[in-house]
Amino acid sequence: MKILFTPIVIIHTPHKMKEGMPIQSSGAEGTKGFIKLKKKYIKGLLDLDGFSHIFLIYYFHKSKGFELLVKPYLDDNFHGIFSTRAPKRPNSIGISVVKLIGIKDNILEIENVDILDGTPLLDIKPYISEFDIHNIEKNGWFNAKKSLLNEIKSDNRFK
Amino acid sequence: MKILFTPIVIIHTPHKMKEGMPIQSSGAEGTKGFIKLKKKYIKGLLDLDGFSHIFLIYYFHKSKGFELLVKPYLDDNFHGIFSTRAPKRPNSIGISVVKLIGIKDNILEIENVDILDGTPLLDIKPYISEFDIHNIEKNGWFNAKKSLLNEIKSDNRFK
Repeated sequence: MKILFTPIVIIHTPHKMKEGMPIQSSGAEGTKGFIKLKKKYIKGLLDLDGFSHIFLIYYFHKSKGFELLVKPYLDDNFHGIFSTRAPKRPNSIGISVVKLIGIKDNILEIENVDILDGTPLLDIKPYISEFDIHNIEKNGWFNAKKSLLNEIKSDNRFK
Repeated sequence: MKILFTPIVIIHTPHKMKEGMPIQSSGAEGTKGFIKLKKKYIKGLLDLDGFSHIFLIYYFHKSKGFELLVKPYLDDNFHGIFSTRAPKRPNSIGISVVKLIGIKDNILEIENVDILDGTPLLDIKPYISEFDIHNIEKNGWFNAKKSLLNEIKSDNRFK
């Protein structure tokens, strides 16, 4: 079974290179970007401005192939790809939760953006507290690394 | 630009029909399911068992086409598709955060499952508090509807 998706548009961000990027939107506080949706999709934005945060679901277009064991940016140890958010995945889908600053016509202004400029956007969904905030008991290997989140940036390990 | 994905496996759940399903994993507390990953991907699960919750990213395989204005299950008013989590989307990608009960070899036991049985799985990612819990100011149209979350189930409106 093959599934075919067509990006709805690209995402504009200040991150022009894969190296030196923030790790997740939590590491990208204040970084702004925008999405200029095709006009044919404008109706689909109705009431989105009522939400303060949105999921962007996108394609890691600069990653080729995948590896099952990877060292994520925040760690020097190997972990299974599915226990990391690294871009080289069997299906290279990325998700980021960004702050929605405002919508004017077909333009969404966003903040806390950890996404490479030119990334093809597949979907937008509202982030909803009751659906998306969970009572977490275990944060796995990340737990020992969380103090590094604002310190470490991406490098060229995932080509 | 077209993007081609190949599901990594299907998700097994007790939800055999699109009607009567829980709304989001928050409405599916205690509902169990499992994922039997292809053996070739086993290495990719290394250290995933350290996380209590995981994102499942999947394809809404029973939805055809899309509508830009929809009435979500929880509401009687129309909203833009991008301000809802409804399945009929320009790219019909679903995300659910489920509880990871355990992993034995290639089998992941999961709980709080709001996904249709047989759904093609595209990706698994760890849910990480620091990345995924956000300080939400506005929950949009959902705010007036949250008391209905455990009461209302899916129906056949999205064919």
